[in-house]
Amino acid sequence: MVWRGLIAAFGDRMNISKAVPPVTLFEGNTPLIPAPRLGASLGVDLFLKYEGLNPTGSFKDRGMTTAITQAAAEGAETVICASTGNTAASAAAYASRAGMQCVVLIPDGKIALGKLAGALAYGARVIAISGSFDDGLRMVREASDKAPIALVNSVNPARLEGQKTAAWEVTEQLGSVPDWLCLPVGNAGNISAYWLGFTESGGDRPRLLGAQAAGAAPIVLGHVVDQPETMATAIRIGNPARWKQAEAALQESNGNILAVTDEEIFAAYRRLATEEGVFCEPSSAAGVAGLIKRINEDRTAYEGRKIVCVLTGHGLKDPDSAVRGIPAPETIPADVDVLLKSIGM
Amino acid sequence: MVWRGLIAAFGDRMNISKAVPPVTLFEGNTPLIPAPRLGASLGVDLFLKYEGLNPTGSFKDRGMTTAITQAAAEGAETVICASTGNTAASAAAYASRAGMQCVVLIPDGKIALGKLAGALAYGARVIAISGSFDDGLRMVREASDKAPIALVNSVNPARLEGQKTAAWEVTEQLGSVPDWLCLPVGNAGNISAYWLGFTESGGDRPRLLGAQAAGAAPIVLGHVVDQPETMATAIRIGNPARWKQAEAALQESNGNILAVTDEEIFAAYRRLATEEGVFCEPSSAAGVAGLIKRINEDRTAYEGRKIVCVLTGHGLKDPDSAVRGIPAPETIPADVDVLLKSIGM
Repeated sequence: MVWRGLIAAFGDRMNISKAVPPVTLFEGNTPLIPAPRLGASLGVDLFLKYEGLNPTGSFKDRGMTTAITQAAAEGAETVICASTGNTAASAAAYASRAGMQCVVLIPDGKIALGKLAGALAYGARVIAISGSFDDGLRMVREASDKAPIALVNSVNPARLEGQKTAAWEVTEQLGSVPDWLCLPVGNAGNISAYWLGFTESGGDRPRLLGAQAAGAAPIVLGHVVDQPETMATAIRIGNPARWKQAEAALQESNGNILAVTDEEIFAAYRRLATEEGVFCEPSSAAGVAGLIKRINEDRTAYEGRKIVCVLTGHGLKDPDSAVRGIPAPETIPADVDVLLKSIGM
Repeated sequence: MVWRGLIAAFGDRMNISKAVPPVTLFEGNTPLIPAPRLGASLGVDLFLKYEGLNPTGSFKDRGMTTAITQAAAEGAETVICASTGNTAASAAAYASRAGMQCVVLIPDGKIALGKLAGALAYGARVIAISGSFDDGLRMVREASDKAPIALVNSVNPARLEGQKTAAWEVTEQLGSVPDWLCLPVGNAGNISAYWLGFTESGGDRPRLLGAQAAGAAPIVLGHVVDQPETMATAIRIGNPARWKQAEAALQESNGNILAVTDEEIFAAYRRLATEEGVFCEPSSAAGVAGLIKRINEDRTAYEGRKIVCVLTGHGLKDPDSAVRGIPAPETIPADVDVLLKSIGM
């Protein structure tokens, strides 16, 4: 069957308006790629849900097709979000698709233009504010109260309606519910959405393993982190919007949440690309880093199990991280014998 | 049915070894996205084959799953290519997947490290040579003659066996063969592969519209271009490897090939992102630019037709192009009324 996006596939199980045709870029249906080399080294049956192959390069598209479709049904002509990354790019793409204006608020002076390439390419109006990211969040909420503007940050409930579909895809692709589902936890929208999806299916549910960056681990620590710090920018969040939902999901699933250092995250990131050929955003590797760490502490709950790690974004989102610390290529003469010698043949 | 890559789906129609399991990242199965806004403005029924959603972000993965699987069947432990872009990233990913070493030759001093982010992330050994790109091509051929190294540049016939599958996907997704298939032409491997795929299907075939960059248009001009120049780097090729095959395909299809300026390519690139929400590499937009140009010259062959434009790579491959010429975001006070006024609400 030809794939025509999440609402076409799963709309009857989504609590959104059906008054307008779906606003879609044929998101979803991303591959569940086996990771046999890494899995064998960990003693588990490992699979990677490669969400970087959504249209704008991250899992955010799952929730944006529903959020923008809902906004269209409500007559919105402008959408707004405060974001410095994947949410902004996704909102901008789906707004373009719907013929809407997209406004993106960013904190002043803290974002390199290259990080905004996605949002700018799709024609979003990017506005910097003299204030923090939290000021931006407050302003987009107020703006959507005061004017006919749809707020598409993760507080928008239609986002979860789209995101929960990833759970159903994983189950179908694996042929069963995994024993464990491991994923990065930033704003905690994704872990909440997976849990909602598995729960709505009514069958078995996996145990959840959430991983936060050590410098941005409010749920692990049990308190807000005022100055979150990590190179894994997509999960640099000190006060998650869906904190309580994530805690409930972790508890109901008999799961676990732990902190991983940037070193552990980047080590997992490199192993995924060089051992399995799967290039993800640094933050996407946090779930794998968490799994490796837990298995090193206590194999018994994991050994021989079917485990799915969610890779939330594509490595091309952050090319700087891929080349950081890599020396410039060596230069050799244009002579094939020199070449063969230099590669040990 | 769950998608498990091109060889699983189409292997019985591929002339490659079946001696080893496929080396795959579940490439292919990319969406064919309708482009209603752009289509209406051109008076055609327009669809975009979005090849940027392959695992490494370009159509090259189609030919690399077959080339690396064939190399594995032949016992290769090292693969080599001369490339500065999409081919290198794809070769590096599939080599990692197969547990092989990947060597990438680049001309000295001409490539920014960021352009190599993909190849470097996947762990390729990148070597610069004191020489031109053509010297690199000669060296990789010689190296593969002298040592047990598999050459995976586009002269490798297994590449076409994978690439031709895109024609079959387009036909299935559209429900029929399109009237026209429009695509960028650089090394001419892709246009040759599509034609091979349509021809092997044995039914109707589309007319082909190829587009070359004006500064790198050897097939249009009828002679080699010694110093090809275009900002659309993926088609900056002066002497295409599959020139004769492309000419034969164009003739058999009663097709057309034309040159488009960089201005026309970038205008199409921006329209795709801002009107349809589809962000592609600049070079990927050449087919759309060519279609727009031809329709402006003579609508009759196109009006009301089903037309597929192939977008060969994702826009995230070249973030610099997305932000070039875009001014830094304006800064406003953190005040919602100022915000609403500045966006005209």
